[in-house]
Amino acid sequence: MAQKPSIPKGTRDFNAEEVAKRSYIMETIKEQFQVFGFQPIETPSFENSETLMGKYGDEGDRLIFKILNSGEFLKKISEEDYSSKSESLITPKISEKALRYDLTVPFARYVVQHQNDIEFPFKRYQIQPVWRADRPQKGRFREFFQCDADVVGSKSLFQEVEFVQLYDAVFSALELEGVTIKINNRKILSGIAEVIGAQDKLIDFTVALDKLDKIGEEKVKEEMRGKGISEDGITKLQPLFTLKGDFGNQIESLKSILSTSEIGLKGIEELEFINTAISNLKLKTATLQLDVTLARGLNYYTGAIFEVSAPEGVKMGSIGGGGRYDDLTGIFGLKDMSGVGISFGLDRIYLVLEELNLFPSTIAESTKVLFINFGDKEAMFSLGAVTKLRQAHITAELFPDAAVSGKQMKKQMNYANRRNIPFVVIMGEEELKSEVFTLKNMASGEQHKVDFDALLDLLK
Amino acid sequence: MAQKPSIPKGTRDFNAEEVAKRSYIMETIKEQFQVFGFQPIETPSFENSETLMGKYGDEGDRLIFKILNSGEFLKKISEEDYSSKSESLITPKISEKALRYDLTVPFARYVVQHQNDIEFPFKRYQIQPVWRADRPQKGRFREFFQCDADVVGSKSLFQEVEFVQLYDAVFSALELEGVTIKINNRKILSGIAEVIGAQDKLIDFTVALDKLDKIGEEKVKEEMRGKGISEDGITKLQPLFTLKGDFGNQIESLKSILSTSEIGLKGIEELEFINTAISNLKLKTATLQLDVTLARGLNYYTGAIFEVSAPEGVKMGSIGGGGRYDDLTGIFGLKDMSGVGISFGLDRIYLVLEELNLFPSTIAESTKVLFINFGDKEAMFSLGAVTKLRQAHITAELFPDAAVSGKQMKKQMNYANRRNIPFVVIMGEEELKSEVFTLKNMASGEQHKVDFDALLDLLK
Repeated sequence: MAQKPSIPKGTRDFNAEEVAKRSYIMETIKEQFQVFGFQPIETPSFENSETLMGKYGDEGDRLIFKILNSGEFLKKISEEDYSSKSESLITPKISEKALRYDLTVPFARYVVQHQNDIEFPFKRYQIQPVWRADRPQKGRFREFFQCDADVVGSKSLFQEVEFVQLYDAVFSALELEGVTIKINNRKILSGIAEVIGAQDKLIDFTVALDKLDKIGEEKVKEEMRGKGISEDGITKLQPLFTLKGDFGNQIESLKSILSTSEIGLKGIEELEFINTAISNLKLKTATLQLDVTLARGLNYYTGAIFEVSAPEGVKMGSIGGGGRYDDLTGIFGLKDMSGVGISFGLDRIYLVLEELNLFPSTIAESTKVLFINFGDKEAMFSLGAVTKLRQAHITAELFPDAAVSGKQMKKQMNYANRRNIPFVVIMGEEELKSEVFTLKNMASGEQHKVDFDALLDLLK
Repeated sequence: MAQKPSIPKGTRDFNAEEVAKRSYIMETIKEQFQVFGFQPIETPSFENSETLMGKYGDEGDRLIFKILNSGEFLKKISEEDYSSKSESLITPKISEKALRYDLTVPFARYVVQHQNDIEFPFKRYQIQPVWRADRPQKGRFREFFQCDADVVGSKSLFQEVEFVQLYDAVFSALELEGVTIKINNRKILSGIAEVIGAQDKLIDFTVALDKLDKIGEEKVKEEMRGKGISEDGITKLQPLFTLKGDFGNQIESLKSILSTSEIGLKGIEELEFINTAISNLKLKTATLQLDVTLARGLNYYTGAIFEVSAPEGVKMGSIGGGGRYDDLTGIFGLKDMSGVGISFGLDRIYLVLEELNLFPSTIAESTKVLFINFGDKEAMFSLGAVTKLRQAHITAELFPDAAVSGKQMKKQMNYANRRNIPFVVIMGEEELKSEVFTLKNMASGEQHKVDFDALLDLLK
């Protein structure tokens, strides 16, 4: 019975051109990861459920794809649990594995599991798909690649400096000039909360502050009042809403706001170190910008917080992000292992390069030359030439079926046209007798009779 | 609470060296796929269950990893089904997606779904992981990569010729010389069954014949008798057990055995075409061998059947296989679409290259030079040099933490040693003053004081 074929919502098929464009981005990122000294690892697509569950909050747990146990999986459920018909009771009994939700938790698991074989500080990169049972929407998929680089085992701020350089190196290599690398520090957010006497409202306060760009100063203040932040606190925050000037000027303003907060001043010191280093080393095409409203996964990060925006004029969320987390591997029993890492958003970078027409024009080219097939004898001779061209790394094809009519020959020419194959070789009876090849340029229509050596030269 | 981390059985973590070795094999295969004119596609990791179920037989269905529906998945089960507590009734109600089991069925689904955007004949390659809930054992995993190339939309035997060349090209590029490409044809097996009057026992007969190498002539005959193949039929088979000589001689013997079978003679004709073409075109390092005992997925293939064995002396099952299937896309409603394809066994090729020591010696090299860190001032200067080296595509690292004692400096040197980093730069107070770098060769112990340009030259 014929089925009408389709794929699950939120997933995608990629054709040759899409694969080539995605590979171009991933290979560019990979090359910079490597030149910065990061080493590749790969982890399994599914992990034991207990490795993943409870690491991403309740909402995250819900979005993890669970794999059904094999065989008589219902046997493991007690009568009592079965009759409850409760998903939360039954799920752990019938599912012991789950698809990874990100690359960070599997990385933490990897570090702890293989800690005796790893030299620390451990600089690793990982480019693999992850899966989330999120509601699909424009630009949000249930299967997508993450491209992560992290270092664990060092608290040195030189790492942060290098990650800013790495972002700059990757986007420069992609010729995506003018991205903004926004930086903040969790310690500054903690310091602000301390100064306004709202340590217990750190999340409410940062969530509100994060909206400054979108809803404006007054609405942010309103939201803060709603969350119970005092009028006095909001007044103290006033300079935050009008932070102006370059990195150095903003730092000076922050110093006066945070003068009484030890942790806040520590955050400023860290930011200054990074900014000074980057000013000395210089970026190629990106700009480093302080953004005190940047919070991201607040509960996760303990030091620097990064986010990258596309060049001005391109409407797109962040195309990268990351930060420092002081105790990632603690959840798996390895304490005091500070880490810092960044991620590249493949799908969004793809859309930005597409919008700005930045993919190399050669990317859609695949086959260089197609040999028209006029019959077994001619085709056999052609295949000899095709074989030699391939050995010279020239992508060559022989049309597999013989054209026994003008119509069939036209079909083969059309095939070359629709596949964007720039050259066609006509190798008919006449050519076979004199052992020459008629080479046709599909764009100009020009034809030349050449011997094999000339053919090879022309196609190289 | 600390958990002891582990991964699900049958899955693997790959470290940097393993990723590099696997990439080397995959990139070599990919390069040849491309030069032969195959185009890459990628499909989602999971498909709708109905796309996969029923395509691999009952045993295959059992081995497909099913994904549990999200949310209140128990709601879809009727009271009656629920109280049956039957896995076969309940599974389809709580699981609508499944991880792909191979790349062939998703490819067939892709071709049918996108038929209006595809130029036929369609030459595609696909290198992606697949999952099987098989009992894990040595060399058998629950997650593994398949590397497939297929053509659909042409019955031309030139495809088979090109696939033999493709195997030869890939294994030659991997410097794995002396592999044997075994070939058979389903039509010959049908012909033999016809001649001995056992058309209805085609599978029993080929399963027995397939064991000739392992259990010998007598035991094979015994098994055939056990399956009800007549003594007369077995006598007619006698020449099969002693097929000798080169491809041509074997073909001649087969011709006399199959002289009365139209389909058998057709199979011989096909094999002769392929063998003649390959004799003319010549293989670089592989040998094409006729093997009438070769059956593989018999129900699947309709013409040529391929299997590749490792060079003599290496104990390993097949490292590749494939064949022609006349109606692959029929299951999804697109009739008369003949296909032929081959697959490369990544994990086994890896083991063979490892055993024969054929991985390039440079494969484990990653970072070329490590700058020892003596403190912020020296490190900042070092990072300037590191940045410039990276821009010249030299993989360079700065140790992130400062060595404030001889012991800590030794730790950094040990780190370079254990990471197999061949060069170290010492950039201390003295070097900083005179802006020179002390470059140490870790293998020889030699040290030189050089300026940046000389450093760059030496590391290039």
